[in-house]
Amino acid sequence: MSGSIVVVGIGPGDLAYLTPAARQAIESADVIFGYKTYLRLIDELAPDIPRQGSGMRQEVDRVNQVVDQARTGLRVALISSGDAGVYGMAGLVYEVLRERGDDDIEVEVIPGVSALNAAAALLGAPLMTDFAAISLSDQLVPRDEILRRVDLAAQADFILCLYNPKGKKRVEPFELACQILARHRSPDTPVGLVRAAYRDKQEVEIITLAELPDAEVNMVTIVIAGNSQTSVYNGKMVTPRGYAHKYELK
Amino acid sequence: MSGSIVVVGIGPGDLAYLTPAARQAIESADVIFGYKTYLRLIDELAPDIPRQGSGMRQEVDRVNQVVDQARTGLRVALISSGDAGVYGMAGLVYEVLRERGDDDIEVEVIPGVSALNAAAALLGAPLMTDFAAISLSDQLVPRDEILRRVDLAAQADFILCLYNPKGKKRVEPFELACQILARHRSPDTPVGLVRAAYRDKQEVEIITLAELPDAEVNMVTIVIAGNSQTSVYNGKMVTPRGYAHKYELK
Repeated sequence: MSGSIVVVGIGPGDLAYLTPAARQAIESADVIFGYKTYLRLIDELAPDIPRQGSGMRQEVDRVNQVVDQARTGLRVALISSGDAGVYGMAGLVYEVLRERGDDDIEVEVIPGVSALNAAAALLGAPLMTDFAAISLSDQLVPRDEILRRVDLAAQADFILCLYNPKGKKRVEPFELACQILARHRSPDTPVGLVRAAYRDKQEVEIITLAELPDAEVNMVTIVIAGNSQTSVYNGKMVTPRGYAHKYELK
Repeated sequence: MSGSIVVVGIGPGDLAYLTPAARQAIESADVIFGYKTYLRLIDELAPDIPRQGSGMRQEVDRVNQVVDQARTGLRVALISSGDAGVYGMAGLVYEVLRERGDDDIEVEVIPGVSALNAAAALLGAPLMTDFAAISLSDQLVPRDEILRRVDLAAQADFILCLYNPKGKKRVEPFELACQILARHRSPDTPVGLVRAAYRDKQEVEIITLAELPDAEVNMVTIVIAGNSQTSVYNGKMVTPRGYAHKYELK
């Protein structure tokens, strides 16, 4: 008898940004799995349902435990912060199921407000035209490939959302990415930094590309680097959609 | 006396994906503005608050009316589908305020589940690594610039999320984008098509890049074209995050 797995994007953290569908999936689970820090964000939800927290870099173990539980017939909720489908846990669930040959376990992914949406809302309106999301973590993707993407994205004038920009010991990809951006964009290009969006320690800052290499940036900062059209208005980062070329705005 | 504007991302449409923060912003507004079709999605919310619907391509007028109302001291909610910050209404609000010099009207953006998150969740887990979002509408952005971005994004092996792929009379950018993708990616690359995610007429389809030029695609289809690593497993589109290079998955 096979159970099911629901991979739940809980949004940035504050329950005001958790969708009713995500809440319902959590509350109707038999057991809840997740990274400890994220489980803490949903502490007050469904207190009677057993939960299994695990640490960072234990994703593969965690997903195998989730599959083990689902195999016994349980409905298992696996928590992802932001959107489960953007650098989240959804993919690993499918990868592990394929590897184990567990084709009959049903999987559902509940989308959430991803970190890039949350960061953009707090910064103003930086993502009004084409953008790219790149993770600078070279833990799972070769560094050269990451930097090649930064370079092509900069050439394409994409607004850039950088995930996991810098680790305690991993600073070089960030430094190199800053250098690449500096070759393609003006030093006064606005860059937004958002940490802990919609959580207690939220910090939102708008700096320039010239200031980026020395900015305080860590694993959980989302960096949004503007494109050639982005500017700052009234403390907000705004990329025009292009209406002004076509219409009288007032 | 100045009022305020709250730009609300309502998510894909089904109220199960509307965040409590968005609901609260709508229910506490003095007046609600939006594109008619989107207002219909929130028909049952706050029935006593007056609403002002307007048609497509009337965005500039709509935002000017919103600003007019906010100027009289009202709290105005402006509805955007998906996330207000991704090709949504947030940017135009700031653009119009700057143009009119209305610096003292307070603006808040409530992020939502964007169309790309919703489409990805229904397709499986296509967005597990770096991706780019490009709108193929050449209404506001020059066609050459759009196609140049498609080309560079294809070179960078980004997963590609295409918004507004095709209009009734606007088919050429889509045809050209298909040709560009075909030059960089294998014909059997999985491509997901999602229409009306989480609404009554939802359609989800996974095809190949070779089939894309003849696929049924229109203004509201979200197209997610996989990268070189994307494959189909058990009817779902999955891009590996890279764990298999580093860990034993089972």
